[in-house]
Amino acid sequence: MRLIEEKFIKLGADNAPGQEVRQNITAIHLRGEKINGIPVDFSHGDVDAFEPIPGSLEHFIDGYHIGGKQAYTEYRGSKNIRQDVAQKLSKFTGSVIDENQNLIITPGTQGALFLAMGSIIARGDKVSIVEPDYFANRKLVEFFDGEIVPIKMDYLNTKTSSGLDLTQLEEAFKNGVKLFLFSNPNNPTGVIYSKEEIRQIAELAQNYGAQVIVDELYSRQIFDGRSYTHLCGENMMDPENLITIIGPSKTESLSGYRLGVAFGSSQIIDRMEKLQAIVSLRASGYSQAVLASWFSEPEGWMSQRIQAHQAIRDDLLGKFNSAEGFTVRATEGGSYIFPKVPELDVTIGEFTKILRLQADVTVTPGTEFGPQFTDSFRINFSQNHAAAIDAIDRIIKVVDLYRK
Amino acid sequence: MRLIEEKFIKLGADNAPGQEVRQNITAIHLRGEKINGIPVDFSHGDVDAFEPIPGSLEHFIDGYHIGGKQAYTEYRGSKNIRQDVAQKLSKFTGSVIDENQNLIITPGTQGALFLAMGSIIARGDKVSIVEPDYFANRKLVEFFDGEIVPIKMDYLNTKTSSGLDLTQLEEAFKNGVKLFLFSNPNNPTGVIYSKEEIRQIAELAQNYGAQVIVDELYSRQIFDGRSYTHLCGENMMDPENLITIIGPSKTESLSGYRLGVAFGSSQIIDRMEKLQAIVSLRASGYSQAVLASWFSEPEGWMSQRIQAHQAIRDDLLGKFNSAEGFTVRATEGGSYIFPKVPELDVTIGEFTKILRLQADVTVTPGTEFGPQFTDSFRINFSQNHAAAIDAIDRIIKVVDLYRK
Repeated sequence: MRLIEEKFIKLGADNAPGQEVRQNITAIHLRGEKINGIPVDFSHGDVDAFEPIPGSLEHFIDGYHIGGKQAYTEYRGSKNIRQDVAQKLSKFTGSVIDENQNLIITPGTQGALFLAMGSIIARGDKVSIVEPDYFANRKLVEFFDGEIVPIKMDYLNTKTSSGLDLTQLEEAFKNGVKLFLFSNPNNPTGVIYSKEEIRQIAELAQNYGAQVIVDELYSRQIFDGRSYTHLCGENMMDPENLITIIGPSKTESLSGYRLGVAFGSSQIIDRMEKLQAIVSLRASGYSQAVLASWFSEPEGWMSQRIQAHQAIRDDLLGKFNSAEGFTVRATEGGSYIFPKVPELDVTIGEFTKILRLQADVTVTPGTEFGPQFTDSFRINFSQNHAAAIDAIDRIIKVVDLYRK
Repeated sequence: MRLIEEKFIKLGADNAPGQEVRQNITAIHLRGEKINGIPVDFSHGDVDAFEPIPGSLEHFIDGYHIGGKQAYTEYRGSKNIRQDVAQKLSKFTGSVIDENQNLIITPGTQGALFLAMGSIIARGDKVSIVEPDYFANRKLVEFFDGEIVPIKMDYLNTKTSSGLDLTQLEEAFKNGVKLFLFSNPNNPTGVIYSKEEIRQIAELAQNYGAQVIVDELYSRQIFDGRSYTHLCGENMMDPENLITIIGPSKTESLSGYRLGVAFGSSQIIDRMEKLQAIVSLRASGYSQAVLASWFSEPEGWMSQRIQAHQAIRDDLLGKFNSAEGFTVRATEGGSYIFPKVPELDVTIGEFTKILRLQADVTVTPGTEFGPQFTDSFRINFSQNHAAAIDAIDRIIKVVDLYRK
């Protein structure tokens, strides 16, 4: 088999959120009748239920009318917009961000993650990722021919921390891991790393001279008034070894514009821009103008949005906790719940296909987040509140039909 | 030096079009006074001089109002939009395009090129590119650890073809080259490949089982009523070995939306979508809606635009032809002129920096298009007509100051 074919077999995207429509589902036999209800796609947030920041479209239109200057920005993004965003993110994270050296605007946070990984990982490099964590992390390491050294997060057996195995992380650094990548809040569990954990990660990275990428995509949506620790704000590791990723695609619902930001190490940001030059040149110039609405939402808009999500979370957790055999940790930040299901006599991949066919509910199988999560699935609860509750009832019914 | 550092040294983007603002230019000594005039940036087209297709912004706004369905399309793009685009491109190129199997919408044509190259090239694969050709082609092969086998195009010594060395191309295929990439019309020379050349390329690729990527970004802007041959329309090679790239960023001035399209081989398109899933997920969903205006321009709009560009071309060629020591081939398609300058006593890289400082004119040095083009530069003449003519006068004056 050619090398390139092997590479793409690992890159399978059939179960990736939003791609379910391309699955071959002819061979599935259903037990019982179809369970009717409003279709809910828990694979990503519903920007009809939670609309984009007010005024975002007007900023886009303004960008269009600026014309050529806005259409052709530097690859790292328009200088004025970088300046505005750098100021807002400095304030938010408590770190120093120079808009000329330390920040790049990208096509979505996925774009930021790809560019950061591609700027750090060379063939054969050892990279640590968390299990469970965002499904693309693993694929990115594989695409760049790195070697994955997974770090376990025992998220179900603690409530005061993420449960990351810091001993394993130190062992990994000792054995030559040069890059650690993690999302905080964690995707798919919604767990927040404790201040102590963040500081220990920083200390370990500093002691072993390792680089760190933190994906803080959901860091503005924190529940129950919890405190959140930005690694970059702790000033415990060489800032040239750290990249933070964030963007307005989630809580702020600006996903349709494809905008993300990476900030930190000037050397890595320089490389990311060089890579951007051959990947897609720049984030859409007109879309960049939409960043003016980010961190400048109308008074009270963000806190209302967080409260609305917290209310959905509470109702959904209530459902799972009162159903038989589910184990679930309460989401601390972000819009994900990652329930562990009772033992089924179909695989989790089959279960998600059945669920779509039988109950019009789309979830993402746990195995996308680590090979061992054969008994979990992820839902994004940024949905119409009533429809989401009803869909959870349907999930529980389907689980009952396929219990062992 | 770490492997990743070596890789990024090759990826230098300082002279990339639009990035000149990041150059260090403190060490340059100018001969004579500043030559005043309206600043002209010939590194890319001016979308203020040639505005986007009428109605493009309205399509974007419609896309926004569609909401979640438009924000979260399949990674390869919205099915409805793919259907519309596939029909238009089938008609334009004379080839069969199934919107479910053979087409992907990407963030710009740069995005399409990156995904196509990343889906075909594995470490060590031999890849042929043309010299001169688009600057990113070389960088992409290097980024994916391929081995470049350049094919010469003797564009100055013929007027009836591109001058591509087909003997060298066959030799390359014999020696194991598995992919040939070229732009038609050629960037930076504006040369169109003859029907005979296109058919010979197809025949050679078919005989040696090679894959081909054709970048047809400028194929709608053809001058003097010339005929243009789409390789995909000749049906001479296995369609599973062929990818064609095109987009509305140039003649149509939709660059600010970041939209491109690749079509052809279903296997390669599948891989491109898997890669898109980790690179940037999808082209901006709202932007995708703008493709409705593409190939659906108001009656007469495209022919007027082509005529306006042809008129600028004629005036600029006239200037270069009457100046002493310039050699230039007339542009046949697209918006580029690639003049060969008289012998200077500064390098072409220094010359382009001097030109910016002394005359407020930005051009791209020939060495971006192949290491041997040390005596040429590229201009994109999609500019304000009068300002462009005046800027050429300034270029000729600066050349006179630095002649050997």
